[in-house]
Amino acid sequence: MTCFVSAVGDEVTLDDLPLRDDLRGRSPYGAPQLDVAVRLNTNENPYPPPPELVADVTQAVQAAAVDLHRYPDRNAEALRTDLAAYLTGASGVTLGMANVWAANGSNEILQQIMQTFGGPGRTAVGFEPSYSMHPIIAAGTRTEWLPAPRRADFAIDVDAAVAVLRERAPDITFLTSPNNPTGQSLEPAELAALIDAAPGVVVVDEAYAEFSDRPTAITLLPTHGRKLIVSRTMSKAFAFAGGRLGYLAAAPAVVDALQLVRLPYHLSSLTQAAARAALRHADATLGSVALLRAERDRVVAELASIGYDVVPSDANFVLFGRFADAPRAWRALLDRGVLIRDVGIPERLRVTIGTPEENDTFLQVAADVVERELRR
Amino acid sequence: MTCFVSAVGDEVTLDDLPLRDDLRGRSPYGAPQLDVAVRLNTNENPYPPPPELVADVTQAVQAAAVDLHRYPDRNAEALRTDLAAYLTGASGVTLGMANVWAANGSNEILQQIMQTFGGPGRTAVGFEPSYSMHPIIAAGTRTEWLPAPRRADFAIDVDAAVAVLRERAPDITFLTSPNNPTGQSLEPAELAALIDAAPGVVVVDEAYAEFSDRPTAITLLPTHGRKLIVSRTMSKAFAFAGGRLGYLAAAPAVVDALQLVRLPYHLSSLTQAAARAALRHADATLGSVALLRAERDRVVAELASIGYDVVPSDANFVLFGRFADAPRAWRALLDRGVLIRDVGIPERLRVTIGTPEENDTFLQVAADVVERELRR
Repeated sequence: MTCFVSAVGDEVTLDDLPLRDDLRGRSPYGAPQLDVAVRLNTNENPYPPPPELVADVTQAVQAAAVDLHRYPDRNAEALRTDLAAYLTGASGVTLGMANVWAANGSNEILQQIMQTFGGPGRTAVGFEPSYSMHPIIAAGTRTEWLPAPRRADFAIDVDAAVAVLRERAPDITFLTSPNNPTGQSLEPAELAALIDAAPGVVVVDEAYAEFSDRPTAITLLPTHGRKLIVSRTMSKAFAFAGGRLGYLAAAPAVVDALQLVRLPYHLSSLTQAAARAALRHADATLGSVALLRAERDRVVAELASIGYDVVPSDANFVLFGRFADAPRAWRALLDRGVLIRDVGIPERLRVTIGTPEENDTFLQVAADVVERELRR
Repeated sequence: MTCFVSAVGDEVTLDDLPLRDDLRGRSPYGAPQLDVAVRLNTNENPYPPPPELVADVTQAVQAAAVDLHRYPDRNAEALRTDLAAYLTGASGVTLGMANVWAANGSNEILQQIMQTFGGPGRTAVGFEPSYSMHPIIAAGTRTEWLPAPRRADFAIDVDAAVAVLRERAPDITFLTSPNNPTGQSLEPAELAALIDAAPGVVVVDEAYAEFSDRPTAITLLPTHGRKLIVSRTMSKAFAFAGGRLGYLAAAPAVVDALQLVRLPYHLSSLTQAAARAALRHADATLGSVALLRAERDRVVAELASIGYDVVPSDANFVLFGRFADAPRAWRALLDRGVLIRDVGIPERLRVTIGTPEENDTFLQVAADVVERELRR
């Protein structure tokens, strides 16, 4: 007896559907989610949340769950107040709830910004290679994406970038600092020069700020509040990738403007409660950052001594190469139990800094394949 | 001594910002979130989650919190499998994970649908008055909104609606059943006629389906899978408004298409865990639905006996009037401790069905104001 299992409607194909023309032939964004021993591919913090944080998140969720039948606080005021206090401590600039907005990951923050300041007939500039979701969210909001180049060493040439911003006059400028996937940060003076040259809104994407030595762009908010939005996430340094909490700091009017496009009640009461609990353990979570920075410097040095070309990094990842065939090298590492990331830059791969043990394994495997995979 | 407290950047006003022209002068969506004794304004389930559900959600979140440093399952496979099982039981149509997609509230579901099938140069038809987020999300995705009328009694005139769909040929058609804020459902034969007439995608918004006597539109998926998307939410019958979990049932190709616009990792691991826990208690939560339906019928009968004109309802809310001045009547009820909803329909207000005690209070207050507020 043969048994056919089929889903309702599975005779319908993508080609049968009237999706937007510009979506046809595209693939969904996302790194492979593979069950591998050493996962160094999505810039997560390798350290699990400490037991006290888990206990506090659990208790906070339990308290919130009693009211699950009610909509959450649409304005997430308590959470935004806590985030403002954290940023005040981190930046030295006194921020209040009115300066902060939060959403389900910084992707939703960026989408709300593009819905507000971008859209059809508007443009956004980014300096590539950079975070690949920027052009994807631009496409999703029908904002025209204008890629501008970085230098061959992946740093931004500030003079050239100023010229690009003056010439192209984008509605939105993206500056990623530290830059993902290449690792360099911009200095405040460089950021100020770029913001001054940009006619529209400037988003400084600081997803990896906690790993950097440089001052945050928040220090520029008092002088550049008409243009500057600093986006952040709890996914990386805060070890809260599973909780999905992105946020931004800006002038209160920017936060007001985003209210016109945000979906009401976008942030669940459980997310708000869990994020607040996680913030109460910031000292413990951020304690791992110093260790990860030291490990990053060790990985950079060891990769170089193995013979790799390594891009200097101010974040929790390192871009290295140069491979004869980066996809083949990626597969060679995966076959040896180490999942890193092919970000689409020729001859280069990106590795996330893991625990010392994970980094040891990665470095051993990187040494094993160097002869076969490195470009001659 | 005078002390001035100000936020960083609060000299910047909305007028200083380069937001999209079509956003200027708009107000954010959202009912007033007021702390009133009797809140019957946002169609929440008045019954708190049972203690077993709270305990199970707490336990599930505790287990998930151990991995908070890792990104969630981007495809939410376990949750979608559970939702498919629930819908299979509710509809009699065997659905699998491939037929289901989930997001942070049905608003995000609807936004993803409009990003995929709508957008600039495309149109969407809705029969108004209906759920007011439909045109707002259309605007947010730059989909042209084409409102079509309902009959004076707020039901859809199917023949007239078929003619509208043939003439306007929208890319997306919204059918809300039961309709919020008016309460009527469409029969499957009516839905089939409308889907057959619609050239593009048809979204049947079934946020209130569990309160209805009518079969779900999911029964049409086997025959209408090329066009039909049925959206649902756990906010209402499931008493999970705070958890923010919307979902849809459709052909697998529709689910595939939405992957092209969804933000990666949009659904947190805590949301996925909590929603799965809540689904395990569906029998208990949905037990309140029978009680709410009986209360709805009582409120309808009593409002009519007080002298109100009441629109028949298949949901957990009732539209009633006719008031000389609906905003004034809304305020009169609020002054007496009962918060209901002014949905912008002249001479009408909408009340959510609460607990028997809340409904008693509401009916008492409605009787108190009937003389003064009813249209002569």
